[in-house]
Amino acid sequence: MNTLRHMLDFGSLNDEEWDSLCREADKIRQNPAAYASARQGAVLATLFFEPSTRTQLSFQTAMLRLGGSVIGFSDPGCSSVAKGESLRDTVKIVGTYADVIVIRSPLEGSAYAASLYSPVPVINAGDGGHLHPTQTMTDLYTLRRELGRCDGLKIGVCGDLYYGRTVHSLLSALARYKGNKFYLISTDSLRIPEYCARELKDSGAEFYEVKTIEECIGELDVLYMTRVQRERFASAEEYQRQAGVYVLTTDKLRHAKSDLVILHPLPKVDEIAPEIDDDPRAKYFAQAENGLYIRMALILWLTENMEHANRKPIHSAYPIPAERICRNPRCVTSREKYLPALAVGDRCAFCAHLVG
Amino acid sequence: MNTLRHMLDFGSLNDEEWDSLCREADKIRQNPAAYASARQGAVLATLFFEPSTRTQLSFQTAMLRLGGSVIGFSDPGCSSVAKGESLRDTVKIVGTYADVIVIRSPLEGSAYAASLYSPVPVINAGDGGHLHPTQTMTDLYTLRRELGRCDGLKIGVCGDLYYGRTVHSLLSALARYKGNKFYLISTDSLRIPEYCARELKDSGAEFYEVKTIEECIGELDVLYMTRVQRERFASAEEYQRQAGVYVLTTDKLRHAKSDLVILHPLPKVDEIAPEIDDDPRAKYFAQAENGLYIRMALILWLTENMEHANRKPIHSAYPIPAERICRNPRCVTSREKYLPALAVGDRCAFCAHLVG
Amino acid sequence: MNTLRHMLDFGSLNDEEWDSLCREADKIRQNPAAYASARQGAVLATLFFEPSTRTQLSFQTAMLRLGGSVIGFSDPGCSSVAKGESLRDTVKIVGTYADVIVIRSPLEGSAYAASLYSPVPVINAGDGGHLHPTQTMTDLYTLRRELGRCDGLKIGVCGDLYYGRTVHSLLSALARYKGNKFYLISTDSLRIPEYCARELKDSGAEFYEVKTIEECIGELDVLYMTRVQRERFASAEEYQRQAGVYVLTTDKLRHAKSDLVILHPLPKVDEIAPEIDDDPRAKYFAQAENGLYIRMALILWLTENMEHANRKPIHSAYPIPAERICRNPRCVTSREKYLPALAVGDRCAFCAHLVG
Repeated sequence: MNTLRHMLDFGSLNDEEWDSLCREADKIRQNPAAYASARQGAVLATLFFEPSTRTQLSFQTAMLRLGGSVIGFSDPGCSSVAKGESLRDTVKIVGTYADVIVIRSPLEGSAYAASLYSPVPVINAGDGGHLHPTQTMTDLYTLRRELGRCDGLKIGVCGDLYYGRTVHSLLSALARYKGNKFYLISTDSLRIPEYCARELKDSGAEFYEVKTIEECIGELDVLYMTRVQRERFASAEEYQRQAGVYVLTTDKLRHAKSDLVILHPLPKVDEIAPEIDDDPRAKYFAQAENGLYIRMALILWLTENMEHANRKPIHSAYPIPAERICRNPRCVTSREKYLPALAVGDRCAFCAHLVG
Repeated sequence: MNTLRHMLDFGSLNDEEWDSLCREADKIRQNPAAYASARQGAVLATLFFEPSTRTQLSFQTAMLRLGGSVIGFSDPGCSSVAKGESLRDTVKIVGTYADVIVIRSPLEGSAYAASLYSPVPVINAGDGGHLHPTQTMTDLYTLRRELGRCDGLKIGVCGDLYYGRTVHSLLSALARYKGNKFYLISTDSLRIPEYCARELKDSGAEFYEVKTIEECIGELDVLYMTRVQRERFASAEEYQRQAGVYVLTTDKLRHAKSDLVILHPLPKVDEIAPEIDDDPRAKYFAQAENGLYIRMALILWLTENMEHANRKPIHSAYPIPAERICRNPRCVTSREKYLPALAVGDRCAFCAHLVG
Repeated sequence: MNTLRHMLDFGSLNDEEWDSLCREADKIRQNPAAYASARQGAVLATLFFEPSTRTQLSFQTAMLRLGGSVIGFSDPGCSSVAKGESLRDTVKIVGTYADVIVIRSPLEGSAYAASLYSPVPVINAGDGGHLHPTQTMTDLYTLRRELGRCDGLKIGVCGDLYYGRTVHSLLSALARYKGNKFYLISTDSLRIPEYCARELKDSGAEFYEVKTIEECIGELDVLYMTRVQRERFASAEEYQRQAGVYVLTTDKLRHAKSDLVILHPLPKVDEIAPEIDDDPRAKYFAQAENGLYIRMALILWLTENMEHANRKPIHSAYPIPAERICRNPRCVTSREKYLPALAVGDRCAFCAHLVG
């Protein structure tokens, strides 16, 4: 009996599994026609409780190019949810329709919660400020293709390092490799959160918090740009004033290495000057295309041997905990009251916030 | 020349047709792979003038698992309709794109209206407070699978019996079988409407209107729970006060039969205590899965021999009636003025309300 | 190396290409089964920055009936766009997912702008008040089928001739054929715009601006009706007062030719009296069905030999023009600031408005 596999957190993959996914993605890229019927007759469901066109199109295309089909919704206002249905019920029902569920939610821990009840594999397409594992997979697969490795690199990460879930995931994943040095470039108000810094320290990785791209660009092998939302600043003026830090211009690339890899999870607004798209070091479009192949490899892996898998959900109902342990208002446990109070160490098992 | 078949009202099926659909659904469940290309190349269109994620996902999955494709919309605000296009025109156009149309509308009689103009089979996915035949098919198919029969049963129906379209359909269908006894459990304000009571009397079925689950639970073979919306009560306090009647708790199951079948059309909110999901008598998730198979069987049946079918709509334009006969403001005839004034006996042919 | 082909403007097709598309559409209509796997494995993306259910369903069905799949979005509020992503980025990314892009936008020139950056063929599904080439293709293909020709015809065009993009496209296309005479029927405020009139004059076509259908109906081979939106008039009363001009009634058809062809791009509201649907001269439903076949032929043509096509976008980044040349606030260049300032003659290359 095969246990159900999920993709909730990139950290759950061991080195062999990750290597295997990358090699499968390479094969798909080289010969897409060979995979065009690989999942014919299978159905992928996208349960998007907050909209994300980019991510949804990427997963839909991945399944379609494997010969499968897609169903789903993309709106928190959609009827069943709006009527107050529990995430557990939604997942149990959709799990009788689909062979794999992709879930995106503003509530942290939603994908983990879904995995407690789903009879089919669950993929976390982003849960609040917590994780976005397939973005991390896309990022690391891109480094692998562009630089041949993920260790011994000097990686600059620029922009919203405080709220940026993509950044936290990336740092967490890259800290596992030997010899990486991180240059964290942000305004003072958007420095990485404490738990992130602690994880970097614990991993033994060197990291430097700097204020500008210019002061470290000459060192970098990788520059990972992220968008900074206006809402993160107190006012439009403050936003403008800080813009100098987080916008990449051709000027700032003057001392960059000739083989620098410039990445961005996209969509981008104005944090990368338009002419940089033509610079051969700009790899963000290739990065987006890589996302398609790595998602195809992931779907193949999670759904292989489905006919032998145990298709019953692992758990069904839990008694409502007497006392909720997690105080994060954006944790899925604040909305889905039946969820068990689970912790991993001193952190909530759903959203990873510290619990009392 | 084969006439077009529609599914507008479960009551239109004779016993042989219903039996045949159930047996086909059983075969599909046993060997889904054998049906995976049954409707390859065919297209199902979902015209949802009010959103219903659950129903839409169910029909989409049904078609995809037959190898077909889906198109459609799910929003009354969508452009053609918002621009004032008649239902007749929408149906005639979409009927040139699709091989089967599934229609959901807040206006009663919409599916019947659509069937007057559609060149392809029409399935009623719910028309206002009138009918929801595929839900009834799902419910009866489930009883057949769980209890082996639909006659000689004691059936409790609980919740919103006044507005609940699903309830009316179910009672109407089960009243056709011999020896069924109905226990109608609701608050005073939500008792079944007069026409429903009359239909039960006319069918010769025994029924009892009771106030609590507890007083009849020991008798029941089937307990069919339904959601009660807050809006049905004058105030939140009134809603809370009445909650005791329509919520099923483990406590109330104490005297229930060991082979009681508990059903719910879903989505559910709080009318079934969460721990009951684990009770082997809870069959509502199996019920949802059955909905998929019976819809697949229905689609197969309605679309067989399409190439020989008369693909011209039965009717096209009617003169606008001098005087509308139906006074129901939610009847489709109140919005689509070109519809003929049709009655069946003393009831509107579209929405079944009594006409002058 | 094959260059990428787009469908941005019907005028870009030469006679042989247009004839070839029509003959392919005929073949598809005669034997749809032969085409049911023609584009299996391929993906069509609908990027709809303003909703249009009709057009979207038509393109989706066209691709599905070729055995392909569809992805896309249909909402300007959708997340990537709302986050401020450039059209260029959206098109470059979606071009790595899909084999053909269908774009609809309220901003004129959007499809042309998309074609500057897309690695795959782009189809213009309507750009503001500028063009809607597949509607024009549908209209001309219908005339070809109904009358056997597009030249030497007397064509009445009625309704909103000022804002009606469909009308402008149709006149422009039909003016290329010899011997056509145009009867432009509208209220005074909705007469064709100056540039349209000039194009007709330059083509040598005869045209008459008239006030009523009645005064010319006896002459017409074709009557092309269009919807007039209430918003085009200053008040509801003004709208009602003018209604007499643009509504087609059975009465007005009294002196019409027996083989008159009545067309309408749909959706229609009240500009054609309902009973006319039954008149054999009413061809607008056949017209909509033709739209499906001609779109299938177009998709086949644009996507043939994809494996040999140059899949790199033609251009990537342009420097921001020092001075925008186009003053049309609805031109895509007013929103996408990186677009080059391009003109064709004295007209903006994107939206065709006169420049400086």
